[in-house]
Amino acid sequence: MITRYREEYFINLNPLQRGGRTNALARKVANNFVDGYSVCDYCKGVLFLIEKPPICKLTIDLAEFLGVDEARIVHGAREGKYIVMNLLIEPGEPIVFDGNRHYTTYVAAERVKAKIYEVPTTGYPYFEVLPEAYEETIKRVIKDTGRPPKLALLTHVDGDYGNLTNAKVVGDICKNYDVPYLLNTAYTAGRMEIDAKKIKADFIVASGHKSLATPGVIGVLGINGKWVDLFLKKSSKYPKKDIELLGCTSRNASAVVLIENIPYLKERVKNFEEEVRKARWFVEKMESLGEIRQLGIKPKKHDLIRFETPLLYEIGEHHRKKGYFLYEELQARGITGLKPGQTNWFKMSTYGLTWKQLNYLFSAFEEIVHQG
Amino acid sequence: MITRYREEYFINLNPLQRGGRTNALARKVANNFVDGYSVCDYCKGVLFLIEKPPICKLTIDLAEFLGVDEARIVHGAREGKYIVMNLLIEPGEPIVFDGNRHYTTYVAAERVKAKIYEVPTTGYPYFEVLPEAYEETIKRVIKDTGRPPKLALLTHVDGDYGNLTNAKVVGDICKNYDVPYLLNTAYTAGRMEIDAKKIKADFIVASGHKSLATPGVIGVLGINGKWVDLFLKKSSKYPKKDIELLGCTSRNASAVVLIENIPYLKERVKNFEEEVRKARWFVEKMESLGEIRQLGIKPKKHDLIRFETPLLYEIGEHHRKKGYFLYEELQARGITGLKPGQTNWFKMSTYGLTWKQLNYLFSAFEEIVHQG
Repeated sequence: MITRYREEYFINLNPLQRGGRTNALARKVANNFVDGYSVCDYCKGVLFLIEKPPICKLTIDLAEFLGVDEARIVHGAREGKYIVMNLLIEPGEPIVFDGNRHYTTYVAAERVKAKIYEVPTTGYPYFEVLPEAYEETIKRVIKDTGRPPKLALLTHVDGDYGNLTNAKVVGDICKNYDVPYLLNTAYTAGRMEIDAKKIKADFIVASGHKSLATPGVIGVLGINGKWVDLFLKKSSKYPKKDIELLGCTSRNASAVVLIENIPYLKERVKNFEEEVRKARWFVEKMESLGEIRQLGIKPKKHDLIRFETPLLYEIGEHHRKKGYFLYEELQARGITGLKPGQTNWFKMSTYGLTWKQLNYLFSAFEEIVHQG
Repeated sequence: MITRYREEYFINLNPLQRGGRTNALARKVANNFVDGYSVCDYCKGVLFLIEKPPICKLTIDLAEFLGVDEARIVHGAREGKYIVMNLLIEPGEPIVFDGNRHYTTYVAAERVKAKIYEVPTTGYPYFEVLPEAYEETIKRVIKDTGRPPKLALLTHVDGDYGNLTNAKVVGDICKNYDVPYLLNTAYTAGRMEIDAKKIKADFIVASGHKSLATPGVIGVLGINGKWVDLFLKKSSKYPKKDIELLGCTSRNASAVVLIENIPYLKERVKNFEEEVRKARWFVEKMESLGEIRQLGIKPKKHDLIRFETPLLYEIGEHHRKKGYFLYEELQARGITGLKPGQTNWFKMSTYGLTWKQLNYLFSAFEEIVHQG
């Protein structure tokens, strides 16, 4: 049998996985609905209308949780982004997104054959996305094409540096230029409070398996205002079936887990400041060790941390295990989630770790550095 | 906690669910990989290259299992159909598919704005899709538009009548007219042996949660011959990422379950004749009760059975519980999966039931009819 004990035996630093960790309740629920199509016992014609389990209520709860008029579960944030791009962008038409965007933003834009305009970041060492740069990029599109872009997308917090960008300022800019605005909250919704309406986002995507403590695959697409009817347009032949969702999307246990998770998520987002405090503490401690620097915005506003680590690289150069010493030494201490062999930089997340775990984690790095 | 004990306590007749039932091994594996993004522990840049768990081997095994050059896991059969239509069909271009097609075939065609040509069935009572009717429909498209359709799709076994259509004959017709051919095996792959090459299918889609004994959501897209490069075209910026798959698709426990299921599925498809024998036996017994008739092709070639049941309707007319008597009487006997209140017809599947269960099932119907 293929097994995995990673989360039970290790502190997992992989930022991709910290926010998707399930709790005991979620695991029990997932096991209850493990059989294929088991959410369809009491089909009401389409997924989001099912009353038992109450997926009909889930979509309402999610809409409230994210501050959108309508929310639908989709397969993930990337699939949500594709749905938006596919409806709004014809081949050759322009899209604007930040230079820190997830690779799937780029690939989804390629899939719809959009003309891509990237909003540059400030580069090394902060890699900051300045909201004002959105205005410049939109102006560039207008100059090039005579019209504003068909869509602007902002990665609320990116997966490389964990930089949080002021989404409201970008929202205001988009409104000024009448550009539909999609906010990718894969690393924020479920970690921190989000209100798409306040942000003036027309669309929002969230990731269940990244930040909503659910099994894969599931995500959320939130839609505001005038876009609702277009995006939830029904089939001409099947009046309950949403065309863009192909009827039903995440027809799986993750949908039921997400129902159970809503109260937990509502609570946990209130603790985000504490999560940021943990990240900042950890950065400070790590930088005290020597040639280790946090990249991205300082001080941290999110738990995803990128370090450049010449100190560790230097140790690897003289170590009999070469660059693999770091991975192996951490592994021996019950810590995992970094890339084996990589020592010049790494990214990690402190999300959900207790202060005790965090202290242990730092002492592990300290020990490895000192014995190196 | 939201619970579900349906499969443990009941015989579930819902055809949607019989082939997606997981075994104990599958459940254990699913629970091991329940955390969000847990299949990504040892990322190799894209899902289908991951070696641990061996998803890289899964795609090879699936290609062999279905008789295609390349196989990729996707979110489900519908999502696979959309991928094919989206790449091959421009708005307004023609598609041909059978009148028994799943609603998602229709909705996916609407999503890509295809011009839809349906191959009519023979209608009541057999609702047969005659392969020759594909030729007539293709000719109709050529007459209308001057060109053959951009795609022909056949529902190998449909979800309404459980009719099995000779896919090879349709394949020959499509080859003759140079029409790309997509076979939807949602109700066949994983139940019976499939060889897309022999059938001359360019594309095949299969459903994990419907017929591959896995949790939702997962499906397979198989691609043959000259189409491989087009469908697996990589991002210009990310050389490992498939554009049409948005990088990675079913990044979830279902992928790992499917790996474990391959040997089991290879074995179970060999028993399909026995499954058909069960269906035929059950039909014969049910029809012996009086005004109950199996619709669709006779004798059955598949486990999905549609009955019209004037006898049960008649009982309901005079029953104090009206049409609900059937559902409730079955429920009281540990049998579920029919629509509450519906008595004039129903569909069901005998797939995977033991002869003992089948005898019990028939005796339950017999009892209900006689006491009605």
